[in-house]
Amino acid sequence: MKEKYGAESGAVDGNSAPDPSESNSGAESGTVDGDSAPVPSESDPNTENRPMHCVVGGAHAFILRISSFFGLAPLRFESRSNGFSVGISSAMCVYSYILVTVLVISTIFGLVAEINVGVDLSVRMTSRMSQFVSTCDVLVVVITAGAGVYGAPKRMRNMLKFMESVASVDTSIGAHYSLATERKLCGILIAILLFFSVLITDDFFFYALQAKKKNRQWDVVTNYIGFYLLWYVVMILELQFAFTALSVRARFQAVNGALALTARHIAVPLEKVRDPTPLNIFAIRVAAESRRCANNVSLLVDTMPGREHAVIIRNAVSGEPKLVVPPCEAIRRLACLHGSLCSVVQRIGNSYGLPLIVILISTLLHLIVTPYFLIMEIIVSAQRIHFLVLQFMWCVTHILRMFVVVEPCHYTITEGKRTEGLVCRLMTSTPSTGMLPSRLELFSRQLMLQSVGYTPMGMCTLDRPLVASVLGAVTTYLVILIQFQRL
Amino acid sequence: MKEKYGAESGAVDGNSAPDPSESNSGAESGTVDGDSAPVPSESDPNTENRPMHCVVGGAHAFILRISSFFGLAPLRFESRSNGFSVGISSAMCVYSYILVTVLVISTIFGLVAEINVGVDLSVRMTSRMSQFVSTCDVLVVVITAGAGVYGAPKRMRNMLKFMESVASVDTSIGAHYSLATERKLCGILIAILLFFSVLITDDFFFYALQAKKKNRQWDVVTNYIGFYLLWYVVMILELQFAFTALSVRARFQAVNGALALTARHIAVPLEKVRDPTPLNIFAIRVAAESRRCANNVSLLVDTMPGREHAVIIRNAVSGEPKLVVPPCEAIRRLACLHGSLCSVVQRIGNSYGLPLIVILISTLLHLIVTPYFLIMEIIVSAQRIHFLVLQFMWCVTHILRMFVVVEPCHYTITEGKRTEGLVCRLMTSTPSTGMLPSRLELFSRQLMLQSVGYTPMGMCTLDRPLVASVLGAVTTYLVILIQFQRL
Amino acid sequence: MKEKYGAESGAVDGNSAPDPSESNSGAESGTVDGDSAPVPSESDPNTENRPMHCVVGGAHAFILRISSFFGLAPLRFESRSNGFSVGISSAMCVYSYILVTVLVISTIFGLVAEINVGVDLSVRMTSRMSQFVSTCDVLVVVITAGAGVYGAPKRMRNMLKFMESVASVDTSIGAHYSLATERKLCGILIAILLFFSVLITDDFFFYALQAKKKNRQWDVVTNYIGFYLLWYVVMILELQFAFTALSVRARFQAVNGALALTARHIAVPLEKVRDPTPLNIFAIRVAAESRRCANNVSLLVDTMPGREHAVIIRNAVSGEPKLVVPPCEAIRRLACLHGSLCSVVQRIGNSYGLPLIVILISTLLHLIVTPYFLIMEIIVSAQRIHFLVLQFMWCVTHILRMFVVVEPCHYTITEGKRTEGLVCRLMTSTPSTGMLPSRLELFSRQLMLQSVGYTPMGMCTLDRPLVASVLGAVTTYLVILIQFQRL
Amino acid sequence: MKEKYGAESGAVDGNSAPDPSESNSGAESGTVDGDSAPVPSESDPNTENRPMHCVVGGAHAFILRISSFFGLAPLRFESRSNGFSVGISSAMCVYSYILVTVLVISTIFGLVAEINVGVDLSVRMTSRMSQFVSTCDVLVVVITAGAGVYGAPKRMRNMLKFMESVASVDTSIGAHYSLATERKLCGILIAILLFFSVLITDDFFFYALQAKKKNRQWDVVTNYIGFYLLWYVVMILELQFAFTALSVRARFQAVNGALALTARHIAVPLEKVRDPTPLNIFAIRVAAESRRCANNVSLLVDTMPGREHAVIIRNAVSGEPKLVVPPCEAIRRLACLHGSLCSVVQRIGNSYGLPLIVILISTLLHLIVTPYFLIMEIIVSAQRIHFLVLQFMWCVTHILRMFVVVEPCHYTITEGKRTEGLVCRLMTSTPSTGMLPSRLELFSRQLMLQSVGYTPMGMCTLDRPLVASVLGAVTTYLVILIQFQRL
Repeated sequence: MKEKYGAESGAVDGNSAPDPSESNSGAESGTVDGDSAPVPSESDPNTENRPMHCVVGGAHAFILRISSFFGLAPLRFESRSNGFSVGISSAMCVYSYILVTVLVISTIFGLVAEINVGVDLSVRMTSRMSQFVSTCDVLVVVITAGAGVYGAPKRMRNMLKFMESVASVDTSIGAHYSLATERKLCGILIAILLFFSVLITDDFFFYALQAKKKNRQWDVVTNYIGFYLLWYVVMILELQFAFTALSVRARFQAVNGALALTARHIAVPLEKVRDPTPLNIFAIRVAAESRRCANNVSLLVDTMPGREHAVIIRNAVSGEPKLVVPPCEAIRRLACLHGSLCSVVQRIGNSYGLPLIVILISTLLHLIVTPYFLIMEIIVSAQRIHFLVLQFMWCVTHILRMFVVVEPCHYTITEGKRTEGLVCRLMTSTPSTGMLPSRLELFSRQLMLQSVGYTPMGMCTLDRPLVASVLGAVTTYLVILIQFQRL
Repeated sequence: MKEKYGAESGAVDGNSAPDPSESNSGAESGTVDGDSAPVPSESDPNTENRPMHCVVGGAHAFILRISSFFGLAPLRFESRSNGFSVGISSAMCVYSYILVTVLVISTIFGLVAEINVGVDLSVRMTSRMSQFVSTCDVLVVVITAGAGVYGAPKRMRNMLKFMESVASVDTSIGAHYSLATERKLCGILIAILLFFSVLITDDFFFYALQAKKKNRQWDVVTNYIGFYLLWYVVMILELQFAFTALSVRARFQAVNGALALTARHIAVPLEKVRDPTPLNIFAIRVAAESRRCANNVSLLVDTMPGREHAVIIRNAVSGEPKLVVPPCEAIRRLACLHGSLCSVVQRIGNSYGLPLIVILISTLLHLIVTPYFLIMEIIVSAQRIHFLVLQFMWCVTHILRMFVVVEPCHYTITEGKRTEGLVCRLMTSTPSTGMLPSRLELFSRQLMLQSVGYTPMGMCTLDRPLVASVLGAVTTYLVILIQFQRL
Repeated sequence: MKEKYGAESGAVDGNSAPDPSESNSGAESGTVDGDSAPVPSESDPNTENRPMHCVVGGAHAFILRISSFFGLAPLRFESRSNGFSVGISSAMCVYSYILVTVLVISTIFGLVAEINVGVDLSVRMTSRMSQFVSTCDVLVVVITAGAGVYGAPKRMRNMLKFMESVASVDTSIGAHYSLATERKLCGILIAILLFFSVLITDDFFFYALQAKKKNRQWDVVTNYIGFYLLWYVVMILELQFAFTALSVRARFQAVNGALALTARHIAVPLEKVRDPTPLNIFAIRVAAESRRCANNVSLLVDTMPGREHAVIIRNAVSGEPKLVVPPCEAIRRLACLHGSLCSVVQRIGNSYGLPLIVILISTLLHLIVTPYFLIMEIIVSAQRIHFLVLQFMWCVTHILRMFVVVEPCHYTITEGKRTEGLVCRLMTSTPSTGMLPSRLELFSRQLMLQSVGYTPMGMCTLDRPLVASVLGAVTTYLVILIQFQRL
Repeated sequence: MKEKYGAESGAVDGNSAPDPSESNSGAESGTVDGDSAPVPSESDPNTENRPMHCVVGGAHAFILRISSFFGLAPLRFESRSNGFSVGISSAMCVYSYILVTVLVISTIFGLVAEINVGVDLSVRMTSRMSQFVSTCDVLVVVITAGAGVYGAPKRMRNMLKFMESVASVDTSIGAHYSLATERKLCGILIAILLFFSVLITDDFFFYALQAKKKNRQWDVVTNYIGFYLLWYVVMILELQFAFTALSVRARFQAVNGALALTARHIAVPLEKVRDPTPLNIFAIRVAAESRRCANNVSLLVDTMPGREHAVIIRNAVSGEPKLVVPPCEAIRRLACLHGSLCSVVQRIGNSYGLPLIVILISTLLHLIVTPYFLIMEIIVSAQRIHFLVLQFMWCVTHILRMFVVVEPCHYTITEGKRTEGLVCRLMTSTPSTGMLPSRLELFSRQLMLQSVGYTPMGMCTLDRPLVASVLGAVTTYLVILIQFQRL
């Protein structure tokens, strides 16, 4: 039966010219596999450093514009009919570097100035100990923002590259663009930023008011303005990562949707059919000028250079998605797409590695220190209501920051597990004849070897168990502290 | 040999009409896999929102009735010959919501009233610190009960859905109904509830007596009555989860039993044959009206629509179970059943996710705080015997609560490992000819990809190592505290 | 080629009568797999409760005799030419139960008596706190010894059962008996026991001398004699587990040796050939009367009832081991043996579950408390040299106890990994024709599904990382305590 | 098609004489697999104890020379044209043992002398507590250096053995020698050593100056000189491990490069082609005299004894690497090379096991104690600037030490994951005809069974999560300590 496969797949692809020779030679002589095939120069060096562009829209364009303002996305935006065409901009790089350097220097000078004022006049550093804690706090923010901004050009270049992978998924799957989803995401984004702005402003005014009693309000304003602006940079960096991860996760969802459609096509019953048109595909579309080179990511071009072959699902006029290739071929292409999405996840994890680790450590430290002050304030005295509310809001913010980073990763892992479940279901239910079982076996082995997950710098996996262990450590620590307080 | 398979399996199924065409086309043309098969509309939308019913009996009916009384199962019970037919009831939903809202509001008002009384007159809050601890305690119970009751309708709808999967296993395996097992389970249930009632009552009266000295006994009663009733809700919620998990685990056991029977059938010797008739199948039977749609869960309908084909084991008149399909087909069907049970486990984990996480956190906190008071009481003074006994009983209760949640999950995992062992044993012992090895290979790959286990919200896996780490953390913490006490 | 396999294996086994029919039918009709094969009643119920016997010798007989004296192995020993024939003895069960009940009661009465004496006169309980710690210490020892002795009959019955599996490995592999290894093991055993006896005696006399100053030496002797004897029971229990685990590990080594021999046979080069005759097989031999029923464990009997077919390796007159079956058949049989050894490991883990968990917890607690006293003694004052030495020896003993339990498990896991490495090596190096690759694939899948390791009660895996985490926890804890002492 | 394989691979290898017979017999009779093949005596005992030599150059030769001076590499160096021929030297063994024995004895005598001086006159032990801490510090260094030097001969013998595996990879892959990479590595090595020397000297002079005030400077010099020299031994030992691990990791990189080349050869598009000539192969070349016996490691010699068959990639005159075997054969050979590199990793982990564990524990302890002093010094008083700088540099050094040990292991694991990704990519993209899919399946199963990673003594895996947990423990601990300080 194996000898028939070449012809079979040839018939499927519609262009059987090169295939029979291959299958024949494979059956008859041993010299074919490596020698006769010319090595295609698909990864020629000039594609590496060509100017990269891609078209973004919706929530992703929104976060990129904000990031760009804070120096975290040195991109040039050109308005198009369907969004913005973005590309690396040298001018924006210079702007980013100048911005963050000025902020970092002013922050550090402010810190030194506050320390030199002494413990009696300062409003935040009323003891040597709090001088030390405040210095740590400021340094953590400075390092995170620095790691974010100085690494931004490289990160954006990476982003442009993997957006091509992502766009090839969109083409293959026949994805829709949902304005409603994009608007909802923009709404969430604005809500988080507004909440954070209110908190930062409140915190700022609280200490300015405290300082007014000592007639130092203008000193405090000039000393801390850089610090508060860097906090913004950190927050935007986290949101940028979260939206990038969510955007990749939407593609995993689309692949799973296509897998479910394939399953229904070969009469495998599924418990619950998700909405057939995965509308929450975000708006990333590779522009026309980079469409040509998108081929070297779409792995399905090995037999003919036609532009329609990568399409797995096309939407009929009725809006119903329809498989345009046989299931066996669909599984093969979906496995390829899954593999390239896995490597996209890995590359995102690498490019956000250092900032994510610094963010996690700083969140852990803040989650240990802030609730302690909050609880002590509650137990010892409840007079300073403003301080109490401020501390509570900081607590909420730090927990929120952790969830902003971890939840998109968790959703991605969940989609990865759904893929495993769907492949299992397909394996047990398909008949054992034809190419399908061997394709599914390949897919299952691929799933065993490649796991979906963000591991910044290989330090830890960003998932809910990480949140559980962080919260567990914080809880135990707080209980110990409060218990001893009690003694 | 593969070309023969179509015919072979056709012969096995007794109805070889559609099969040869498939195997022929699979061997000759590549266009079969996806196109010629019409897509069956087995998951048409009207099955989604049809009124769901199922028949329950025995211990599961008992716990559902109790849950229903406490608002955790808004179901309508109709007595049948073999149990109760249950379905979602809107009236019960309203009752549940009103009940829990009243309890929560009265509890919170009681808490505020107690705090306002001040540390001198209160019996449980004799310091600012214990005010804080008591507030946490009350809030944890309120949140757990709220998460339990407000999510109950969705959870029950899920339960009705997966009970169909469970019922299809029962039909396939030829399961028995054991009155003795059900009675034993009801006994355990009543024993746990009685123990808990005694504890709650004792605790209540202890504090009422304390309050009597300050002439505040009626205040305390009205302030705390809601709190104690919410404790009941929490306890019932845990028991409901435990019984649901046990009921699924009994199906895993039945699948393992069928696997062992298949192994004996093909002359694979096993060390120890478990009791051939797995009698501890709980009493969940899908009623006649939903039997029709149970087909979309039983995955075995792909070749013919007869209603007997899903049966793997039938009990002979002698009471001996007997395979009614060839071993190779039995393995295929058991793999399907195993897969659908795995997804049942996952859905139960999802629908009980939030309450389970809150319960675990509250148990951890209680296990840290309660033994500390107990040990301090022992070391410092042993006069207040009643308080000592009460604290000891609370300790026992919290450990019991953890085991009530974790043990059914552990048993399920153990059954999952037994399946792996049985499949391994079958793999090594079967001859290498025929379809059996490839079926077993599929089963083994499925077991590698899908793991059996409850992971509420993806936070942690409910198993014994979790208990070990919780107990380890508590022990270390207590040793540190007592050691410092010593200094 | 597959059609030839039946004949091939038939030719190999020397008795090809039933095989061709099977291979033919497998190739021609689909009705063979399950129906035509009669179900053999190899696991008939009367083999379950038949009187079990097996012959043990060497170090294992030695530890069983000592265990038997302390009530941990209620066996009847009959001297044979090659060791002792052992079987469950009801008289010894009664002796064990009486012994441990007397010891437990006397220990608890002693404890109560010491507490009632008061903190002024007692030598070990000089404060309420040390009363609490001492009570915990005594209770842990009582529980461990109780769990050990009361579960001993069941454990021994299990041991007799899995010894048959072990004996079938010995027969198949052609194992030798090494007197030297046995003597070395007995030596280690005696050394550990002597060290422990000296420590216990020294500890006993230290407190007796202390008591002499208060004229209470005889009270102390009667109060504590039971406690010290129970310590012995605990120690013997640990050694019994260690020797059982070592004995199973020797069989894994033998299977690996046979695998390496097979590899050399098919010209796969290995870096280093271990000693071809695995001499450290301990002396467990199933006696003649249970040889008959050993068949139901050896899984290789499915086609013919000859008694020589299970032999994989036989030693030539020159002492050189030689494969007596073709490599492909050898791999199949070794996979079976490996699988049955895995289930032996699992059953040992189950039967020693509770005592092992109690031992681990008590070791953890002792390792936290004992070094603390030692270090405090060193830092505060070095006058009481005897106490210092005693505490140091207790530290060493507790670390030794942990290693006695964990090291045999670690060695077993290491052998399991060596098997994986050997199978990998064989997979990459064998030619891709013949049955060998598919047999190796089966073996590799079996290794992926079944892991070698002791997990008492599913709580944790007994391995070196467990030791690392225990020692890490103890170290951190001690550093914190000492640091605070410093402040 | 399978029957064709023998001929196919024979044609590929250029020498088809022994192959057809094998494939024929495999297809026709079942007695071939084990009996007719003569067992080759490739691992005859005289190759075990033959004098081993290998030629090293570049950075590896540099670190070995330094190690040799400090007694950590008892080798005889003979200058060759392309590096140094090294072999075990008995004279150097004696030198090593004498050196370390003298240093250890002088260190311990110095320690005892300092303790006997008393807390008033000593400069490092100003209290009983710091006497205890200092003693622990000295003992840890003594144990690490002792474990390093006394185990050095065995470790070097192991190194010579696995260098042959490594050299066979170099031959097969056609590796280059890059002088630039070697010089960069030597530079890093010298920089680390210089930094450490400055630190050690500064620390030494700091305490000598302190002692001068008490007129004890010469006592301190003689008491501590051994201790500081042993610190050097420890540092060199870590660097030796790091360079060995880096050298193995370069081979994994080369195997991955060859895999990528194979992928390009069969027209599988890869996102980014790494530099085609992996220049960072370190300079380890087996000398001519041991080339003969390198065959027993290169696993590819099983059919013919020619010396060219193991070559997978040869560099064309244009400098472009070129596959000289068909892809299917290349995959097979690369899988073999990967397997042998995995066992090299395991053997390195075993031979450095004990020193690595002692180093990890000592680093953990130092990382807990040193930052505490640093932070206390900052908070309490900032007068002693020299002491502050010294403590800070020690902190940096201990973190550096941990990274020196862990980073090479992390890089190795990363390469292992890259192999998995490449194999997945190949699996999904290759056509399903020919031998290639089955070869890739074998490779993927091998990757699932054998993991790449250093696990010294099976205690833990050396990777970044270990660093994360160490830093997490240290952070939590410091926060607790400082928080309590605050109270």
